Amino acid sequence: MKFSFKNDYSEGCHPNILQALLQYNLDQQAGYGEDEYSLKAKTLIKEKINNHNSEVFLVSGGTQANLIVISAILKPYQCVISAAPGHILNNETGAIEATGHKVLSIDTADGKLKPSDIIPVLEGHSNVPHQVMPKLVYISNSTELGTIYQAKELEELSVFCKQNKLYLFMDGARLGHGLTSEISDLTLEKVALLTDVFYLGGTKNGALIGEAIIVNNPVLQEDFAFNIKQKGALLAKGRLLGIQFMELMKDNLYFDLAKHANQQAMKIKNALQKKGAAFLSDTYTNQIFPILSNDLIETLSEKFEFYVWKKVDENFSAIRLITSWNTGDEAVNRFIEIIETELP
Amino acid sequence: MKFSFKNDYSEGCHPNILQALLQYNLDQQAGYGEDEYSLKAKTLIKEKINNHNSEVFLVSGGTQANLIVISAILKPYQCVISAAPGHILNNETGAIEATGHKVLSIDTADGKLKPSDIIPVLEGHSNVPHQVMPKLVYISNSTELGTIYQAKELEELSVFCKQNKLYLFMDGARLGHGLTSEISDLTLEKVALLTDVFYLGGTKNGALIGEAIIVNNPVLQEDFAFNIKQKGALLAKGRLLGIQFMELMKDNLYFDLAKHANQQAMKIKNALQKKGAAFLSDTYTNQIFPILSNDLIETLSEKFEFYVWKKVDENFSAIRLITSWNTGDEAVNRFIEIIETELP
Amino acid sequence: MKFSFKNDYSEGCHPNILQALLQYNLDQQAGYGEDEYSLKAKTLIKEKINNHNSEVFLVSGGTQANLIVISAILKPYQCVISAAPGHILNNETGAIEATGHKVLSIDTADGKLKPSDIIPVLEGHSNVPHQVMPKLVYISNSTELGTIYQAKELEELSVFCKQNKLYLFMDGARLGHGLTSEISDLTLEKVALLTDVFYLGGTKNGALIGEAIIVNNPVLQEDFAFNIKQKGALLAKGRLLGIQFMELMKDNLYFDLAKHANQQAMKIKNALQKKGAAFLSDTYTNQIFPILSNDLIETLSEKFEFYVWKKVDENFSAIRLITSWNTGDEAVNRFIEIIETELP
Amino acid sequence: MKFSFKNDYSEGCHPNILQALLQYNLDQQAGYGEDEYSLKAKTLIKEKINNHNSEVFLVSGGTQANLIVISAILKPYQCVISAAPGHILNNETGAIEATGHKVLSIDTADGKLKPSDIIPVLEGHSNVPHQVMPKLVYISNSTELGTIYQAKELEELSVFCKQNKLYLFMDGARLGHGLTSEISDLTLEKVALLTDVFYLGGTKNGALIGEAIIVNNPVLQEDFAFNIKQKGALLAKGRLLGIQFMELMKDNLYFDLAKHANQQAMKIKNALQKKGAAFLSDTYTNQIFPILSNDLIETLSEKFEFYVWKKVDENFSAIRLITSWNTGDEAVNRFIEIIETELP
Repeated sequence: MKFSFKNDYSEGCHPNILQALLQYNLDQQAGYGEDEYSLKAKTLIKEKINNHNSEVFLVSGGTQANLIVISAILKPYQCVISAAPGHILNNETGAIEATGHKVLSIDTADGKLKPSDIIPVLEGHSNVPHQVMPKLVYISNSTELGTIYQAKELEELSVFCKQNKLYLFMDGARLGHGLTSEISDLTLEKVALLTDVFYLGGTKNGALIGEAIIVNNPVLQEDFAFNIKQKGALLAKGRLLGIQFMELMKDNLYFDLAKHANQQAMKIKNALQKKGAAFLSDTYTNQIFPILSNDLIETLSEKFEFYVWKKVDENFSAIRLITSWNTGDEAVNRFIEIIETELP
Repeated sequence: MKFSFKNDYSEGCHPNILQALLQYNLDQQAGYGEDEYSLKAKTLIKEKINNHNSEVFLVSGGTQANLIVISAILKPYQCVISAAPGHILNNETGAIEATGHKVLSIDTADGKLKPSDIIPVLEGHSNVPHQVMPKLVYISNSTELGTIYQAKELEELSVFCKQNKLYLFMDGARLGHGLTSEISDLTLEKVALLTDVFYLGGTKNGALIGEAIIVNNPVLQEDFAFNIKQKGALLAKGRLLGIQFMELMKDNLYFDLAKHANQQAMKIKNALQKKGAAFLSDTYTNQIFPILSNDLIETLSEKFEFYVWKKVDENFSAIRLITSWNTGDEAVNRFIEIIETELP
Repeated sequence: MKFSFKNDYSEGCHPNILQALLQYNLDQQAGYGEDEYSLKAKTLIKEKINNHNSEVFLVSGGTQANLIVISAILKPYQCVISAAPGHILNNETGAIEATGHKVLSIDTADGKLKPSDIIPVLEGHSNVPHQVMPKLVYISNSTELGTIYQAKELEELSVFCKQNKLYLFMDGARLGHGLTSEISDLTLEKVALLTDVFYLGGTKNGALIGEAIIVNNPVLQEDFAFNIKQKGALLAKGRLLGIQFMELMKDNLYFDLAKHANQQAMKIKNALQKKGAAFLSDTYTNQIFPILSNDLIETLSEKFEFYVWKKVDENFSAIRLITSWNTGDEAVNRFIEIIETELP
Repeated sequence: MKFSFKNDYSEGCHPNILQALLQYNLDQQAGYGEDEYSLKAKTLIKEKINNHNSEVFLVSGGTQANLIVISAILKPYQCVISAAPGHILNNETGAIEATGHKVLSIDTADGKLKPSDIIPVLEGHSNVPHQVMPKLVYISNSTELGTIYQAKELEELSVFCKQNKLYLFMDGARLGHGLTSEISDLTLEKVALLTDVFYLGGTKNGALIGEAIIVNNPVLQEDFAFNIKQKGALLAKGRLLGIQFMELMKDNLYFDLAKHANQQAMKIKNALQKKGAAFLSDTYTNQIFPILSNDLIETLSEKFEFYVWKKVDENFSAIRLITSWNTGDEAVNRFIEIIETELP
């Protein structure tokens, strides 16, 4: 069977999680997230963000987290601002609109948002009450293009949002990868300080399912749990989510896993760079987008699965490679070997 | 620690499931329910219902299943009919209304719906276009009161719905318990034949999470998957749901687990009946509602957890006891012992 | 042609309105409610309620007013409490649910709500976060059964709502009739003082279309206009609404019209009472519900249109008679004549 | 007072309408659009489109018409395709999204859609079920930029939509102006033949309020009236809409009014063209967008009201002038006089 670099959710979960599921399996616990593992997981998260006034809610997946957070925050006439590659814009079957809210799209080269990107959108929505009111800025870190926010960038965005009475919400499906990127100077603590809401993605970083929504802004905490239940996200056996995040938050497991994924991607990136390969974008996380000849792509695809992302010209295309917490050296080395053999 | 008869989701999952999660953990699989375990689970379900034209969708929980099915089926001006104790009416934070649809409530003594209950509702909604149009009948089996539908009852309801152009949807959060009740003459195959949509509940019958939605009516199958994704219910690691239902559907595990839960409840019921205890309703599934003296309830609550359901008079109240796939003989026997000692 | 007592919207509008429409027809005015007639109308309304801090919004009809107000106020998980005959429950095709909100129904004999009716609903919705949160109390004055709120009743309800953090919203489709009832001790000023939002109905009291929503609670005023536009209720030629309310609010026209309608109904009521007729409910507004023999009903229906409301026994039924601002003496006298001739 | 060229809804309505409102004012009629004027208006419209199988629904305004039609047609996961200047995208406060549906925007120079514009959108939405499903094409005629569809263009679009199982919906807020443009070869009959749904705008063409929705596709007619009521658009005194459309459809009034508006705009256009003025777009309806020097704009704005639409360079800007059914020769001539005096 071919090794797959298609995504970071091809495998099951980290063995510690399975071990814990086994260990606690027959203990009777309260339902709906009131089990002791969930409570422990929430405490560990609050310690890691160094803010015990934040509130934590564990849900199953990213689309669910996005639609719950956004519909909980916005009034009917308010809308979201997102960079064009934003997951909520393209890959969630209109989940946000289904809760009644428009998502405005901003074209950006790197999938990130800066205040200067947002200003014209605000200016273009001043015809009260004939237009939706922009109220929430949605960003991803790492982004859907593998890029990341640095501390200064997030600070500027955060200040801008406060000045303009906009909420700032970070989709952290790959937050572990963003924060452990070798070039990142951003910390989890700072993310919690600078955003109104964000989430820590488990699904793409070693869990079976699970995203931990962290609501920092006290105004947004009120009655938040109702939204979780109403959207069908409150698991009767909340223990399943609790145990996973309890394990991921122990020691530094969550970040170790993400770092490993990043490092495996960087090994491939470095091998490609040594051979002079170009990239669609300059990333330092677990997603890379090398531009290769169609011949080489064909050779590689005999041994590996991955997406051909974009045709560049007649002879060259960009491919997308994603590594995960479980991508082993063997697969990486085999891939590099082919690169080194086949690239001139 | 006290043993809990509060609900059927206090424990983790059946060991076979954990075993399978371990066994397949590191196999790379396609995401979003295209993994081989999900495909296998769906095949097994179709075999059990003896209908390969039905379509199966695996989701995380009951509220999620309910809101997806109902919002997928109804047009904006159509509504649901439910018996008053229906889970969607009382325990799902308005999840159905949040998708835009009214739920009409019908008072019934036993939590079940008969054609004669529905006729007056249809007659009372004939002022076109000033009233919502009833279009979907929602029933639970076993019901929220522990009662069940017999084959003849479901047949009559099914015929009535077809005659009146109503869809029939069965909430099967406890369908295993309903079908393995010692008095039930209904089969899974018949349920699939008589309903437009139903689901097989995993969460309350040995899984960690998971309900299998089965769409029998071909008209309702079209594009159904979009609804799953839009409501945030399409797990990236669909394998988690697939493995669970694959294991539950193997041999007769799903039904064995439900039968066990029922039997444990019946043991307690019989012990109580021998002592002449009365019951709020006459149930043959894993929920029983004995009426006991407040003194006895206090004594029992020192050793067991359960809900006091309803005050009957000054001295007596009904309690609710729920058993599960994992309720052992020890807890049951200890409970019976107290009954036998304390009841005259 | 038969004279119709079927409803209070059978005729066009009061001649003063048509006169003003003619007079101002060709003046160019700003659109979307910024015309001078709308501004004048709003000022007149604020004077009549003696509160210049309230905000006034003119919309086309009652269902529109109800769905805008309720969806503007409530968060997704919050719901409405209404008496069972409430217009939003039975006669608006699920308009409120279509905006995502459940409406809880309370059975009451007279179509009115008292604190003691609401308390059990609040108590029955305490299972956080598994149930919707009651947040808005919807009442009508006069009610759908023709009954009215007295000052003391509304005060008690208002205090209760404040104590329980509930908003109080009065559907005033027939508020003119309620306030000018011969037994009413409630004033428009008091209504504005005691409710968070209410509206003054024009459609059923002399206008062609139009309800004036009055938002008294400053918290609810913020950005309210966006909701009007989003729900399709902001007329480009807002002047149509403005001119109508400007005319209705001049002198005492609005209340004179309602009083006339009430008086015509009372004439018929008195004639019936003199003859010993019984009534389904004891009303003092423009709706009466006399119980008559089927023979007499048949005789009356040869000359008049009205609804047979409810079968009382084999030989008797209640009918509903509604009078309007334009119900003349001739029709009333002819009706009374038959009564006096035919009733023993 | 300055004459306003700001929009086509500054004045009241055509005198015939007021005359009819007066004439029929005190006739008692059935409510909710069952009055004889509404029935007559619908018959006249069906005659004009030469299709008695179409169904006609009268509502108050354009945003209301758009949100009702779109939410009635689409399933929850389906979306709309619109040209970027589409009214539903920019000027309706997210009314469509508030009913749960995304609107995809296509950049086009002239505000019109061609099959070749739509193909890439369909291709870009093929990742089932992770993306919304495009299902309805929304066009305006005349467009928000004053341009129009010719018969051949609409035919090609209609064929394309049928081939791709897309519904075609024409916003006809200014359909009269589109069809009576001096260059238009499209007829009302053909519009009805080529679209699934369209509407005839009254508000911007001589009515006080009112748009006539015409549902041509029989599949979409089923139960359509429920949507009208649910969205708060069913007027109790439907006669107000009926009388207006009855008058507008008599003889050729509707089209005469639109033609007049177009002609007045063309007079100004011609005067400007003679003087060599450039235009932002080449329009033949009642909207023109001349590019003038800032000095001339200032001079004109002392006598007239209009919008400055777009800055072109340091010294020049485009303005928007809109004429209406009631724009008289005097205003037009005064405007032209200034042009002829001030332009070299």
